[in-house]
Amino acid sequence: MPHHQELLAFTPSGPGLHEITPAVRRVVERSGVACGLCTLFVQHTSASLLLQENADPSARHDLERFYARLAPEGDPRYTHVAEGPDDMPAHLRSALSRTSETVPIRDGRLALGTWQGIYLFEHRRRPGTRRLIVHVWGE
Amino acid sequence: MPHHQELLAFTPSGPGLHEITPAVRRVVERSGVACGLCTLFVQHTSASLLLQENADPSARHDLERFYARLAPEGDPRYTHVAEGPDDMPAHLRSALSRTSETVPIRDGRLALGTWQGIYLFEHRRRPGTRRLIVHVWGE
Amino acid sequence: MPHHQELLAFTPSGPGLHEITPAVRRVVERSGVACGLCTLFVQHTSASLLLQENADPSARHDLERFYARLAPEGDPRYTHVAEGPDDMPAHLRSALSRTSETVPIRDGRLALGTWQGIYLFEHRRRPGTRRLIVHVWGE
Repeated sequence: MPHHQELLAFTPSGPGLHEITPAVRRVVERSGVACGLCTLFVQHTSASLLLQENADPSARHDLERFYARLAPEGDPRYTHVAEGPDDMPAHLRSALSRTSETVPIRDGRLALGTWQGIYLFEHRRRPGTRRLIVHVWGE
Repeated sequence: MPHHQELLAFTPSGPGLHEITPAVRRVVERSGVACGLCTLFVQHTSASLLLQENADPSARHDLERFYARLAPEGDPRYTHVAEGPDDMPAHLRSALSRTSETVPIRDGRLALGTWQGIYLFEHRRRPGTRRLIVHVWGE
Repeated sequence: MPHHQELLAFTPSGPGLHEITPAVRRVVERSGVACGLCTLFVQHTSASLLLQENADPSARHDLERFYARLAPEGDPRYTHVAEGPDDMPAHLRSALSRTSETVPIRDGRLALGTWQGIYLFEHRRRPGTRRLIVHVWGE
């Protein structure tokens, strides 16, 4: 099948990096594509995507804290504050990570590097359901 | 038609986030694609792309000011200054946002989230014409 | 051929921006695609991709130094330090640039802007071999 599209829903337990590689792998398997690409798209502006190291949790912890320092809560210069103190930093941290990401498929599998995992990067303190579109195409 | 490509030109009124969602939607409509993807590519290194909240202008204002603080004009450490004080910050702000972005198409429409808009992020004070390639493919 | 995929390997001489445009162009030529897209994907979390100005080396120099200030080595708040002082900054600088990038193909050529070059952004002091997948598809 040349095009295979699925809508995935996640409800993160809280802010931070949540690995979604297994769910994406299953979409690729269902697609039956051997050689192609897998595009991920997050339908939000306060949650985003990152491919990061999946071996050592300390790398994710440091990354989350780095983004929290770079775009902190409570900056008095923010004017967009009606939706809570974590809303504007969420938009900024999304801008500084990814809304879409495309990963090649080789031999029927996601061609991730040895240490790469796919993460949903949740930026709100009390996240609702997050929707991600996974589109696989190839031959 | 499996591949549909158009070259769009914009002349932003000034620096900041300029919504281009309607122009991109029209390309998708002209393509006739029902299920597929839409890739956007900006042919510049001093203007970029972002998907951001399209509801409240204060979010865009704060985002523009955040990028201006993160990569400010006039940093004495810049050596690339021949093209003006806004040139090097423009390259940095482009690096920290997106050159390409891919949005899925579902049921013949861009599958944006409820609050997502597509923005051309202009970083120069006196922008010229900005060229964007929109490539739609699918079935 | 609708899908053409190649695995490229680079061994950067050191950290910083290394232009890979000629190697990517050759993949596009070999693909025979006239109208389509070229997706680049780096299989690492301590090296990344950027499209940047290829005219003046001072722009790249300033960009490298900017990222070094933004995510510096030796921050005592890092806890992920087992792989050396340049490892955690490498993950952060990768997060702040790109893992994948998609460039349109028009008239059989990469549709880069006049001043755009494709760069492998190496973040480790003593890089090993870096693997990049180039996937071209179209008609």
